[in-house]
Amino acid sequence: MSAPFFGDLAPIAYAGPESRSPLAFRWYDKDRVVLGKRMEEHMRFAVCYWHSFTWPGGDPFGGETFLRPWMHGADEMALARAKADVAFDLFRILGVPFYTFHDRDVAPEGATLAESNRNVREIAEIFARKQEETGIGLLWGTANLFSNRRFMSGAATNPDPDVFTFAAAQVKNAIDVTRELGGSNYVLWGGREGYETLLNTSLSRELDQAGRFLSMVVDYKHRTGFKGTILIEPKPKEPTKHQYDYDVATVYGFLARYGLEKEVKVNIEQNHALLAGHTFEHELAMARALGIFGSVDLNRGDGINGWDTDQFAMSGEEMTLAWVEILRAGGFTDGGFNFDAKIRRQSLDPEDLVIAHVASMDVTAKALLAAAAIVEDGDLDGAVAARYAGWDGAEGKAILAGERSLEDLAARAEAEGLDPQPKSGRQEYLERLVSLYH
Amino acid sequence: MSAPFFGDLAPIAYAGPESRSPLAFRWYDKDRVVLGKRMEEHMRFAVCYWHSFTWPGGDPFGGETFLRPWMHGADEMALARAKADVAFDLFRILGVPFYTFHDRDVAPEGATLAESNRNVREIAEIFARKQEETGIGLLWGTANLFSNRRFMSGAATNPDPDVFTFAAAQVKNAIDVTRELGGSNYVLWGGREGYETLLNTSLSRELDQAGRFLSMVVDYKHRTGFKGTILIEPKPKEPTKHQYDYDVATVYGFLARYGLEKEVKVNIEQNHALLAGHTFEHELAMARALGIFGSVDLNRGDGINGWDTDQFAMSGEEMTLAWVEILRAGGFTDGGFNFDAKIRRQSLDPEDLVIAHVASMDVTAKALLAAAAIVEDGDLDGAVAARYAGWDGAEGKAILAGERSLEDLAARAEAEGLDPQPKSGRQEYLERLVSLYH
Amino acid sequence: MSAPFFGDLAPIAYAGPESRSPLAFRWYDKDRVVLGKRMEEHMRFAVCYWHSFTWPGGDPFGGETFLRPWMHGADEMALARAKADVAFDLFRILGVPFYTFHDRDVAPEGATLAESNRNVREIAEIFARKQEETGIGLLWGTANLFSNRRFMSGAATNPDPDVFTFAAAQVKNAIDVTRELGGSNYVLWGGREGYETLLNTSLSRELDQAGRFLSMVVDYKHRTGFKGTILIEPKPKEPTKHQYDYDVATVYGFLARYGLEKEVKVNIEQNHALLAGHTFEHELAMARALGIFGSVDLNRGDGINGWDTDQFAMSGEEMTLAWVEILRAGGFTDGGFNFDAKIRRQSLDPEDLVIAHVASMDVTAKALLAAAAIVEDGDLDGAVAARYAGWDGAEGKAILAGERSLEDLAARAEAEGLDPQPKSGRQEYLERLVSLYH
Amino acid sequence: MSAPFFGDLAPIAYAGPESRSPLAFRWYDKDRVVLGKRMEEHMRFAVCYWHSFTWPGGDPFGGETFLRPWMHGADEMALARAKADVAFDLFRILGVPFYTFHDRDVAPEGATLAESNRNVREIAEIFARKQEETGIGLLWGTANLFSNRRFMSGAATNPDPDVFTFAAAQVKNAIDVTRELGGSNYVLWGGREGYETLLNTSLSRELDQAGRFLSMVVDYKHRTGFKGTILIEPKPKEPTKHQYDYDVATVYGFLARYGLEKEVKVNIEQNHALLAGHTFEHELAMARALGIFGSVDLNRGDGINGWDTDQFAMSGEEMTLAWVEILRAGGFTDGGFNFDAKIRRQSLDPEDLVIAHVASMDVTAKALLAAAAIVEDGDLDGAVAARYAGWDGAEGKAILAGERSLEDLAARAEAEGLDPQPKSGRQEYLERLVSLYH
Repeated sequence: MSAPFFGDLAPIAYAGPESRSPLAFRWYDKDRVVLGKRMEEHMRFAVCYWHSFTWPGGDPFGGETFLRPWMHGADEMALARAKADVAFDLFRILGVPFYTFHDRDVAPEGATLAESNRNVREIAEIFARKQEETGIGLLWGTANLFSNRRFMSGAATNPDPDVFTFAAAQVKNAIDVTRELGGSNYVLWGGREGYETLLNTSLSRELDQAGRFLSMVVDYKHRTGFKGTILIEPKPKEPTKHQYDYDVATVYGFLARYGLEKEVKVNIEQNHALLAGHTFEHELAMARALGIFGSVDLNRGDGINGWDTDQFAMSGEEMTLAWVEILRAGGFTDGGFNFDAKIRRQSLDPEDLVIAHVASMDVTAKALLAAAAIVEDGDLDGAVAARYAGWDGAEGKAILAGERSLEDLAARAEAEGLDPQPKSGRQEYLERLVSLYH
Repeated sequence: MSAPFFGDLAPIAYAGPESRSPLAFRWYDKDRVVLGKRMEEHMRFAVCYWHSFTWPGGDPFGGETFLRPWMHGADEMALARAKADVAFDLFRILGVPFYTFHDRDVAPEGATLAESNRNVREIAEIFARKQEETGIGLLWGTANLFSNRRFMSGAATNPDPDVFTFAAAQVKNAIDVTRELGGSNYVLWGGREGYETLLNTSLSRELDQAGRFLSMVVDYKHRTGFKGTILIEPKPKEPTKHQYDYDVATVYGFLARYGLEKEVKVNIEQNHALLAGHTFEHELAMARALGIFGSVDLNRGDGINGWDTDQFAMSGEEMTLAWVEILRAGGFTDGGFNFDAKIRRQSLDPEDLVIAHVASMDVTAKALLAAAAIVEDGDLDGAVAARYAGWDGAEGKAILAGERSLEDLAARAEAEGLDPQPKSGRQEYLERLVSLYH
Repeated sequence: MSAPFFGDLAPIAYAGPESRSPLAFRWYDKDRVVLGKRMEEHMRFAVCYWHSFTWPGGDPFGGETFLRPWMHGADEMALARAKADVAFDLFRILGVPFYTFHDRDVAPEGATLAESNRNVREIAEIFARKQEETGIGLLWGTANLFSNRRFMSGAATNPDPDVFTFAAAQVKNAIDVTRELGGSNYVLWGGREGYETLLNTSLSRELDQAGRFLSMVVDYKHRTGFKGTILIEPKPKEPTKHQYDYDVATVYGFLARYGLEKEVKVNIEQNHALLAGHTFEHELAMARALGIFGSVDLNRGDGINGWDTDQFAMSGEEMTLAWVEILRAGGFTDGGFNFDAKIRRQSLDPEDLVIAHVASMDVTAKALLAAAAIVEDGDLDGAVAARYAGWDGAEGKAILAGERSLEDLAARAEAEGLDPQPKSGRQEYLERLVSLYH
Repeated sequence: MSAPFFGDLAPIAYAGPESRSPLAFRWYDKDRVVLGKRMEEHMRFAVCYWHSFTWPGGDPFGGETFLRPWMHGADEMALARAKADVAFDLFRILGVPFYTFHDRDVAPEGATLAESNRNVREIAEIFARKQEETGIGLLWGTANLFSNRRFMSGAATNPDPDVFTFAAAQVKNAIDVTRELGGSNYVLWGGREGYETLLNTSLSRELDQAGRFLSMVVDYKHRTGFKGTILIEPKPKEPTKHQYDYDVATVYGFLARYGLEKEVKVNIEQNHALLAGHTFEHELAMARALGIFGSVDLNRGDGINGWDTDQFAMSGEEMTLAWVEILRAGGFTDGGFNFDAKIRRQSLDPEDLVIAHVASMDVTAKALLAAAAIVEDGDLDGAVAARYAGWDGAEGKAILAGERSLEDLAARAEAEGLDPQPKSGRQEYLERLVSLYH
């Protein structure tokens, strides 16, 4: 690994919309101010360690394709350090302000939990130094509680309390490291918190276990003074047949059941939204309506295939609709756009990895400009407001305030011979309106 | 309509497992005692007015096929009375203890709401008399808030508060009629409570409207002394692109948000479970875990097609898994099995309607016997209990009781060098175990 | 119906990309020459009678919403004539060169087949006159063999040969009318040519019946000198559980089995592609590869819902990928873009109908410009050609020419110690490349 | 590996329907004669090397769980020999007459193709000896052309002809070994014969390459005197986004295009049928109708999840419907039931592997008995025949024989005033009929 993995690639620069280079930004101009905020602050892009440096290119029917220089060797910690160098080199080339990681992505699992934790800490010290040198920050950290076979039947929801305990110890270390690195959030994705068959499963036990685990995490956050947001990442299935954190609405119900709806927010992923039978913008809008919008895992699923493809988001049209919801939710505070996206296993070249990020950042930036214009012009929000205007009248407010009973309304309906006429929903007009901004 | 629609068909009798007649029960022996209760009390079968008497056999690409004698004529109330006669004749033939209806299925919509309400009441009086004569009861009533074009953009969630008001008046009448007929439950299915495009929709407004509407219904129930259970019927989509009552877990979150989780339960439909990406037994188990199991709409979707097919449940294997969950939930109290099932539009003959119900009742009865044996033998529940036994130990209980912090568990894990080994989930053994009961 | 349905709307004009009007074209400039052809000739837009004038706005859970002036009245033929006036008024406003129709959309079904045929002919005479007056042409005609209950179990594939015969008579009339109106194509969509359950179905009988029917149609075409193309429209399901014309590849196999693969082409619909588990561009590319690309039903399905939504195509990104395949296939000859698209049932206003067409035409035009630039620039096609360059070498050609046996290749592989190394597929680079054109 | 993997487990014996043992057959009584054939001859069960001995229990989010004794060690050929011993021990315990394998499952890949081929041959010699000792035979062999990264962009359909050549050499060796071991069939599953994105793909080139490859295989078969059947295994997707051998109908079209429809048959898998949007019985019936029914990969997908789960078939009801189609197709000749099924990755114990096979064999046997009774009783086939009886009349035959033109039929329809009335399809009656046999 003497030669740099990405060669001598200079940082990607903004070159304007006329540029055709795959290694320049046409739209992402990080200091450009949009709706009162710099683009970089809007986006809060983070590169993800797992997808870009750790996944070897395998799928259920084939082995690794990438064969990166840091993937095979006798000294696993040396490989981990080499990987960290490559990672920060990519962050530098892309000019992203953040990165994210799972504990197991950055350092090898040791023979014991204590050794594993030490390995993570050793690499975290390198990260700390590199963060200081580069100004790059940690968007979130998380613990991998799904790959090792000990977690095959769940971590918090495992039938064995010793696995729960092991997971708790691993999460404590991951939170500590995240806090020490100044992470803005801490994420929990329950990849194995679900079931494969109801025949061997007690849903009520497992839900209570998961509730307890999350409560412990929240308590620990407060006790240790961690200021970041705790995020749950919903996903309906895969790897397990059914996962408890199915979608945003399900997570809300779970939080409410265990009294945590003010403590925890969601990290929304486009591909997971699709797998749950929703659009990306639905999940964003639902999180906003329920007051739990936190962060975004940026990617794109395949509308045809029924599994998680984690492709790079490349559609300006889709991202515009997402941005409209994000802007309506007030934009990111602690959260950001984490690249939960893998280059395809056939995209073997280092350049593929760079181009994928550049292209997706750029399309996201273009979409922000479109969404900002939509919000500023106000025609879309105006049409929605006009549609519900009746609810802002006296009777509408009285109903919503609980000042009307069923009998009251029935009496009025009969007395007035109420016969409300439907009004056009104007869907095609609104679709046309949005298309004007592309 | 001088000749009886079903000819002179005698009530369907129990003829034992060796019978091959499609017009006899092989398994449904209503007075047979299973797990301490008569079969009839376990099942609480109800025939549904809409599916069996009102749906004309149309689909999105074709018109009516059934052309029942009560479907076309100048005097709509006379047709409605004739339909009531045929309906109670089918109830008698099948020997079911219950029926269910939407207000608009039993009587024609009038020129005004007042007239519509009167039409419903007139038929309800016939029902009351027939109930008294036959001993047949009403499992639940409901209001159709989705067919008329005034509801095209929702009832409770309509952008126009006048439509909300109209819907409230209609629901009040339907609850009144249900209460007067001694209904065991009142059902709300939000067929139009959802959205078609987010471009014209305010999720937060609509959720608040729906919460308010449901609160009014609950208040009215208590104020009028109605003893039945209020049920919400989850469905993820169809007719609208997205419906708010997506699935059991989503409904729970909605109820919790508006403080109604102790007041309202769910009416679970197999076909709706499939459309939401779940199995039927998942939704039953989830409702039990969350304490909101109410009633069941008995049918079967098509695993291939992506819409509501409402086929008659004909699989003993599927129903056995469902029964296991229902028995674990304590069986039905107010709820029951409502036939939310349509004969195919090509099944033109009156006999098809009878055979469909008989076959589905019978397979459900056979499945009860299998599930009861599974529960009585205890091997399945024993395997589940053994799997979670660790949580019944001192440390497991302490964790769940909130007596352990993340630090406590981390300290123990490191001190003991915890390395929990995975244990077989034994899925295939348990599947084999269940197959022994078929 | 004294006032014109669309008021005094002037023909939609091209106003350039800066226009924000929903009633002007920003991109569709019909005389603009692109790749050597006028835009209008590229597009060959056709408005569809069924979707825009006949569908009443119903869905499986609700009745009509549109209540158009020509939908209810005692004199059905008078209504049909009024509808024709409105239809041609829309064609004029939009400036489309073509329209399409099912026989049953243009005229009411009579008491007998003969009367039905006469009704169709009477309206067709009006069409002939209007075509002459306006210069608008017929892209294709077709027969509705799916709505009437006689076809509930299929038309050509019906178990009853009398239904086959009835369908043949109806198709003969529709072909005659299409020929006389100078139609460019004749379409067969087998909405009921499939099955609901295998329990009552003989696949082999039904496939043979369908093969015979299509052969008769082809024979009739030649015998009567009809110069148009016979098109089959693939769809996997809905209304029936399974339709025989599942997708392009299945139709090809069916044609090959009955010796018709040189006689019949396909009419590809985006929404049907999705329902079959494909992308739109897949079906276009497959038709091109198999030599059976004919025409397109332009619309958009919903990636989430599992049924035919027939929405107006509004995505420039999706249409660009489609256009690339259409241009690669040489563009349309007899075929064109038929609007197989319905405004949503909540889009009540006449203006909604106009805007929907305008918006979809415009986005399709914009996509043509993007696709034409992609094709002209050649980077995309160049990348594909370079990837397969090995097959243009001597050994590659020899293999494809059948000049190599398995033994030959095995011998060479062993002799040369062949160890071919994978090369990057560059998917993200190519996605970026395409995004440059938006 | 001194202790036998399965302990001292005796061969599984038939113990009758009253047995509750998971290690005994209740229904599979191999010498029992059903419809004139021994059960063993009907079933022709084969255990699959890949699923039962080679898959390590990984999934996209987690590593291996099984850690079998033959999976890790320095001497890979010694491990391969040990695995062969365990495999034949399982075959003995189960009493199956057949097994199946991919070349790469039985022996490790060497540094060169020649070494890989030698490794396969060395193990094949052990197989030959064990076959002779035990009487167990090879149902089919196949080559793994999808796991190694050289095949990441396809084997026959690779853009690089050297990969095509390498694949040809590997297939030649696999066919040779299969022939020498007396294999009844040779299978081709095109796991990578498809595409990930159309942007870098030429469908027409790739289809032609695939056609050529298959033609070479067929030629080689004839030239070498291999008497087995060449089988293609359809699958719509996974691992690639789109696979060319989508489903049975698509494979038929492909074979017809390259003149191979009399030479090649299909190996149908339940899970692949589901992924293609079909039922298992649909694919069986379609293969029968098209004359290409060959063999079956026995397993069960998950109706909810959108990927290949390869679960053990455990549903007697589903298998009964499959058996009806298999019996209608004349039963197996060269084909059989290959267990393309994996125990879940949580099913860690050796006993789980045995129980899974026993349970699935047993449920398949029970289903055969049900299907045989259905066929013998004849009510189901009689109902189908009656439904199509009209086509066996003079006019029906004349139409199918091509003796009627469109004009003939139109003339008769008008002359007779044809108005055919629909007849009930009796779906629920037929479903009830089938349920009588469970």
